[in-house]
Order: sequence, then structure tokens, then C-alpha cells
Amino acid sequence: MVLHIIGLGLHDEKDITVRGLEIVRQCSRVYLENYTSILMVDSSKLEEFYGVSVTVADREMESDKMLEGADKTDVAFLVVGDPFGATTHNDFQLRARELGIPVNVIHNASIMNAVGACGLQLYRFGEAISIVFFIDTWKPDSWYSKMLENRRRGLHTLCLLDIQVKEPSWESLARGTKDYQPPRFMSVRTAIEQLLEVEESRQEGAVSSDLVCVGLARVGCPDQRIVAGTLAELLDVEFGPPLHSLCIPGTVHSVEEEMLNMYKLQTG
Amino acid sequence: MVLHIIGLGLHDEKDITVRGLEIVRQCSRVYLENYTSILMVDSSKLEEFYGVSVTVADREMESDKMLEGADKTDVAFLVVGDPFGATTHNDFQLRARELGIPVNVIHNASIMNAVGACGLQLYRFGEAISIVFFIDTWKPDSWYSKMLENRRRGLHTLCLLDIQVKEPSWESLARGTKDYQPPRFMSVRTAIEQLLEVEESRQEGAVSSDLVCVGLARVGCPDQRIVAGTLAELLDVEFGPPLHSLCIPGTVHSVEEEMLNMYKLQTG
Repeated sequence: MVLHIIGLGLHDEKDITVRGLEIVRQCSRVYLENYTSILMVDSSKLEEFYGVSVTVADREMESDKMLEGADKTDVAFLVVGDPFGATTHNDFQLRARELGIPVNVIHNASIMNAVGACGLQLYRFGEAISIVFFIDTWKPDSWYSKMLENRRRGLHTLCLLDIQVKEPSWESLARGTKDYQPPRFMSVRTAIEQLLEVEESRQEGAVSSDLVCVGLARVGCPDQRIVAGTLAELLDVEFGPPLHSLCIPGTVHSVEEEMLNMYKLQTG
Repeated sequence: MVLHIIGLGLHDEKDITVRGLEIVRQCSRVYLENYTSILMVDSSKLEEFYGVSVTVADREMESDKMLEGADKTDVAFLVVGDPFGATTHNDFQLRARELGIPVNVIHNASIMNAVGACGLQLYRFGEAISIVFFIDTWKPDSWYSKMLENRRRGLHTLCLLDIQVKEPSWESLARGTKDYQPPRFMSVRTAIEQLLEVEESRQEGAVSSDLVCVGLARVGCPDQRIVAGTLAELLDVEFGPPLHSLCIPGTVHSVEEEMLNMYKLQTG
């Protein structure tokens, strides 16, 4: 009767809201989207806690298959973070509505608002950017101009770092087959290296190695790590397992400054 | 032993996460912040569902009083939306850390990410703006330049609309006393009126009455209302009870367009 798109939040099976949990326990079919982000726990943990069987939906699972019968019974589509974090979820929602299936959304935290944990105020962020893995033949840097523009306006920039889950390798695509690469998650270190590489070639001053920035790992998890320091300093910080993000501050106000100080590297 | 700052999400007592609920039930003292946002239910509903007594904290309650004894026992500070929605919560967190009290944050949805429900992609939003109630002698419009700049860059703008809870009236302040005004929440209609008033005087083209925008009310609640239409059309839409927000789109991509169409006023 209804397609429920339910945000799971940032860490594990207990970050679902009470309302979300009540709904998921009543659904006859439950899918977990795991190609635009990842939870820190295995889907079996979800099954155990929710008391339902969960089918992991990858990029290739067709939306119509998942929506099959959703006009007669309740179907849940679980999304890491908030349901509106990725364009593909909007596509899915539109497809459901085309089929006349009502959609119910249960919101949750996502990196887009939880990044406030670093102390930079959310309403002072400009456009967010996505940094993807460079390869020898393709080094997309359109994000550089956006970051530069934010910095000129004194605004902070949230850098979302590349997540590659179940992506075919370039070599296999060239052969016309699909061999999947192991999942890859960009680290703060790689992001900074790519950032400085682009700065080096464009020289427009969006960043410099002595700019104080903030690296974040596993935001919202018990072992989250938030460190403020110059880009040069952050290059040497071990942030641990994914997911990582990076914030490039614009103009920093006094309370923001105090919060950043709390996350500064202890040196000396 | 710990100060837990727990996001309650957007609607009622069931929008807390399962993790948040477990923690709040174990705290010896629980405060509810209700001066930067509001829940759609009375605090007694929270008390009943959480099984704990909840003290409503207003702007004047001192942080040190709330933190009293938090070094010996667990204290929860409940915040509508996400804990990092308002600067005051950062102040509070900093004060706790000064006192040597560990802080644990439980994230949740806030309007800053749930606004994605209207179909405009979060990563294409520029700086958010706050529109406050105009009075005869004070019509702050610094947000106008920010909106204009976002529009020039093709970025969307989230307008956060004024919330006045337990604010002393200007007249009473002039008398040296503090008479509180009844709570006031800015409507989409008032926001648009103020927006068009500023456009009329500045004439820089940030908006026009025929620009298609999105009005949102009670996002994340079962009776949420999202309507896309020109500013002139939205002036006549009854959005109902608070909280309201307004989105001014920049360049609209195709999936965004389809989502907006879903929310368009049915005319004809």
C-alpha cells in the first residue's frame, strides 16, 4: 500500500528512529540500499535487531522489481543517512509515484547536517563538493572553482569523498565485461593530496598547505574522529576506517574558532 | 558522568533514535531546549513516552545550573532537530568541556538536510539565510545579498524563517522590564511579503513574483505540506501551523524539475 523510504542515520542498527523501527517491523519486504553510502555494521545486524529479513539492493537491482506488489503491501527501502542524500533516491521515489504508490519518508541525520559536529556553523557553509578518485587519465577538478568561490565569500566547504561500491573496473569495461573492483573509500589523506595537486596546477589560491582545515571520520559513530589542523598536518593523521570527510573553512567566527581549538592536534 | 546532547528530529516523541531513547531513559536529569525550535507535541508527551521527567529549558536558564552534578551523573539535553542546528548549543557544549564533563552527541534530522524532501538536491544549495520579522523601525535585509549571490551561481537558497519564543517585547525593554510576547512563527506568506518588499526597494533581481519557489510547512510531520509555485501563487496558499520554510531555487536540473512538478499547485 505504501513505499516507506527510511533513513538509518550514520552508524548502526540503533540509529533508526523509533517511528522508523515501528514501520520497518510491519513491512512485508525490506530492502537496504548500499551503493551510495555504507553503515558500519553488516546487514545481518539489522535483520536481527529489526526482526525482519533484509535484501541488499545494489546499483543494478531494478526499481520496478523492488516496487513489485507495493500497491498491495508495505515495502521499506532503507537508506544510510537521510533519504534525500542521493539523486538516485529521488528517481526511485518518482518511479513509485508514477506507479501510483504512495511514498512515506522517515528522515534521519546525514553527513550534510551532522558535519556541524566539527563546530563550523551549518548556515555558513556554501555549496558542498564531491571529490572523486583521480586516475592517470582522468582528474576531474570542477570542484576547485566551487571551493574557491566559497572561500572568496568566507563560506565553509564540505568535501564529500568518493565511495566506490560494486563499480566495474575500467579494464573490464574496456573488455566489454564487468569485473567488480573491491569497495574503495577515499581517505582524508587522499583528498588532501588531490586538493594540493590541483592547487599546484591551477594556483588560484583556494587552499594552501598551511590552511587550517578539519578532517572527519565516522561522524556520529562512537569512535568518530575529528581533527583540526593545517592540510600539511592532516596529511599525517591516521583517521582509521571509512567514511571520511573534509571541511575547508571560510571565515571563522569566535565560537567556531573555540570549537575548532577543541579539535586541534595536540603538539609539543 | 556524561552530558548527552540528543537530537529529537522534526515531529514528535517517536522521532528520537533508538540509541537516543535508550540513553534518555538512563539519565537522571533531562532538559528540553525549546527556544530555537519547537516540536509538534507538548513536553508531557515526551515524558510519557520516554518515562522520565523533562524540564523545559528556556533561553534564560543558566547552562551551569543544567550542568550541575553532570560530573557525577548522566544529564540529557534534548534538542529539536539536530544538536548542531543553533550556535547556542555549541556554547553549551564548550561550557561542559571547560568543566571537564564529557559530551556525547546523538544526531538526528534537521531542516538543514530534511529540506531535500522538496526535490532540490542538498549539494546544490548555497549559503542558507535567516529571515527575521520586520518591524517599522528595523528591517534587516543582509540576507538579500546572500540570496542574490546564490542565484547568480545557480545555487538554491534555504530561507529559515523567524521563530520568536519567549522574547521580551520592545516596549517592555524600553521600560526596563521584561514582558514576554506570545510565541510567533513566520509564515511562508510573511516571508514572501518581506522578500518582495526588499526586492522592490533594492531592485537587483534576486527574486521576482513570477519565480517558481517552494514553500514547506512541518517537514517530516505526517501533515507536512510542500507546494511549488510562483511567489505570487504561494502568497495565497494556506500552509497551516508552523514551522514554515521557503526555498528559492537556483538552476534546476531535470530530476529536480520532475520532483518540483510533483509539488506544483494543481490549477486549471
